[in-house]
Amino acid sequence: MKSLNENLIGIAGGAARLQTPALVIDLDVFERNLTHMVAHAKKAGIGLRPHAKTHKSVEIARRQIAAGANGVCCAKLGEAEALAEGGIEAILITSPVVTEAGIARLMALNAHIADLMAVCDNAKVAARLDAAAQAAGKPLKVLVDIDPGMSRTGIRAADAPALVEQVAAARGLVYCGLQCYAGQVQHLESPNERRAASLQAMKELGDLRDALARAGHAPKIISGGGTGTFDIDPEARVLTELQVGSYIFMDRQYNDVWEKPGDRVPFETSLFVQTTVISANRPGLATTDAGFKSFATDAGQPLLHSGAPEGSVYFFFGDEQGGVSYPKDGPLLQPTDVLRCVVPHCDPTVNLYDRYHCVRGDVLEAIWPVDGRGRSA
Amino acid sequence: MKSLNENLIGIAGGAARLQTPALVIDLDVFERNLTHMVAHAKKAGIGLRPHAKTHKSVEIARRQIAAGANGVCCAKLGEAEALAEGGIEAILITSPVVTEAGIARLMALNAHIADLMAVCDNAKVAARLDAAAQAAGKPLKVLVDIDPGMSRTGIRAADAPALVEQVAAARGLVYCGLQCYAGQVQHLESPNERRAASLQAMKELGDLRDALARAGHAPKIISGGGTGTFDIDPEARVLTELQVGSYIFMDRQYNDVWEKPGDRVPFETSLFVQTTVISANRPGLATTDAGFKSFATDAGQPLLHSGAPEGSVYFFFGDEQGGVSYPKDGPLLQPTDVLRCVVPHCDPTVNLYDRYHCVRGDVLEAIWPVDGRGRSA
Repeated sequence: MKSLNENLIGIAGGAARLQTPALVIDLDVFERNLTHMVAHAKKAGIGLRPHAKTHKSVEIARRQIAAGANGVCCAKLGEAEALAEGGIEAILITSPVVTEAGIARLMALNAHIADLMAVCDNAKVAARLDAAAQAAGKPLKVLVDIDPGMSRTGIRAADAPALVEQVAAARGLVYCGLQCYAGQVQHLESPNERRAASLQAMKELGDLRDALARAGHAPKIISGGGTGTFDIDPEARVLTELQVGSYIFMDRQYNDVWEKPGDRVPFETSLFVQTTVISANRPGLATTDAGFKSFATDAGQPLLHSGAPEGSVYFFFGDEQGGVSYPKDGPLLQPTDVLRCVVPHCDPTVNLYDRYHCVRGDVLEAIWPVDGRGRSA
Repeated sequence: MKSLNENLIGIAGGAARLQTPALVIDLDVFERNLTHMVAHAKKAGIGLRPHAKTHKSVEIARRQIAAGANGVCCAKLGEAEALAEGGIEAILITSPVVTEAGIARLMALNAHIADLMAVCDNAKVAARLDAAAQAAGKPLKVLVDIDPGMSRTGIRAADAPALVEQVAAARGLVYCGLQCYAGQVQHLESPNERRAASLQAMKELGDLRDALARAGHAPKIISGGGTGTFDIDPEARVLTELQVGSYIFMDRQYNDVWEKPGDRVPFETSLFVQTTVISANRPGLATTDAGFKSFATDAGQPLLHSGAPEGSVYFFFGDEQGGVSYPKDGPLLQPTDVLRCVVPHCDPTVNLYDRYHCVRGDVLEAIWPVDGRGRSA
């Protein structure tokens, strides 16, 4: 489907005239976020493999790779297929692919792009991947996925050496190293707790790395980390690359992690949902066009960024609408008024939209597809 | 994008082999739900205009109209455009369309289909709709939207007669009646409270109807109601048609409304998310491929329906994964195991998927597109 807003590209004031709800990127801020992370990684002497689960966009993946990233991460096979269709050649799929049909798709993707890596946390699945890759005639690069105590995916460090041994010995597989994502520490709001928990996870991972090296299986790649620990993980000198995702957008949830004084990061919010007032028949209350279908709701309410009177609060008003509660003694909100909100949680919010509306000041500069939207299978 | 699962259509056992997460309709149950609502409305002497915001599907809208509905409701202009592209000709858009570009699209849609109705709750917007319809050369049918005390959209009953007068007098508009959706009462879990609140809202609406009739503006259509009050609203004899939506699917939230003994409804759950175990390295814990991107999260956790041991509980494990906590003394869950979940809230969950996988028993019978997915603008 053609974008409703294509006619507004390049027109002064076009940004305010988007048909809404619309997902908006402030390009100036977005570009600064990209640049700052590259500078940080360079200074810290660590690689970047940004997580495309955040943006699901070929255009953004291209920019991240052009800025020096080793490639991108995808959460799911479908997301990786979508980015590969758009020409992205270096992809790590960070969730295990386990089913027969999934493994067949993985082999097709491996044949199609230059640099695909998969993860594995299970001996039976490793055997199936090996057999499939041997049958397909192109070895599959594999990182063994380590559980940092989150118990989501990954094998416990104690059980990892046997699986590493199996992967390294498999003729169809190329053992490339480890993945370890400590998701449970990313949003700890106390900097000291976040630091301690992250460094503890890195310490255990470092011990595993050393043990593997002694056994002749030194991991070339150790991939992990996130936006919440981007400045903590590198000092442990265990990870070789950071899987940072949200730094490009900075949602309300990640802003909360750093909102305390002295706790500054170089990243600013570049992603917004733009919404329009559609009804306003009660004092101090306006109804917008963006509800549960326009924001992921797992992380609380959106935060009003612009367009509403000082002291306004946004709330969900069902599937299709939002509400703005605002001071009764100030200016009135009226139908057609335009508001922007910081999203509570960027990744699943992006997954609701087919396209980004990229603005610079009041100009709509470009529309980028969310290529991997809905590709969770 | 082609469905990953098309090759499974018609194959015995195909339903269990879907690439997941997948949105699944149990067709036998779905068809019974459709039939039961038609029988109910016939017996109650009330019309049906089912809400397509639930399903966003041309195929389902067609079936609802073929079974005798007056047409369907759409929440948004974009959703209506999507169904109109698929040949649906009778659509009520239940949210106000207010912007200049939105009104232009509304006029284009009005020119394109036989029986479009819009709602209005604001005098200035009514004037704009009138001018646009006059310029377009085809009058626009309008229901005046009444606020039943929810304060979301709609004009207060006391202020409605003046707006009705304006709409009825407008040369570009055809005054067709009223809309009044008492969303706030649909999920009240006490049947007595739900009944009392709903009948109170209907009483006030009936008084308005009578006052309008005395002023020469008897509403031909009074559209409202939902699945939560499908069996309460008709007895008030105010609504002429029910905007029921969720009855076709029955999510966990609506099941909760009726789960008490003696509180039976003829609707059963027909909609599921099918998910696959991708990791299981801890006793009593398995990780699936369906998280925040595969379920709307505004109404709590999914409910395990099949595939997991007795006593298992599903929980969200981040954007990409779900978790199943299950008794440690029973059968083990393993990668590739397939589970089905009842979704917490159907409408925004459907909005995450590009297609329905329609199963009958263990056979995948058809794949239907979610035509209006993401069309919230």
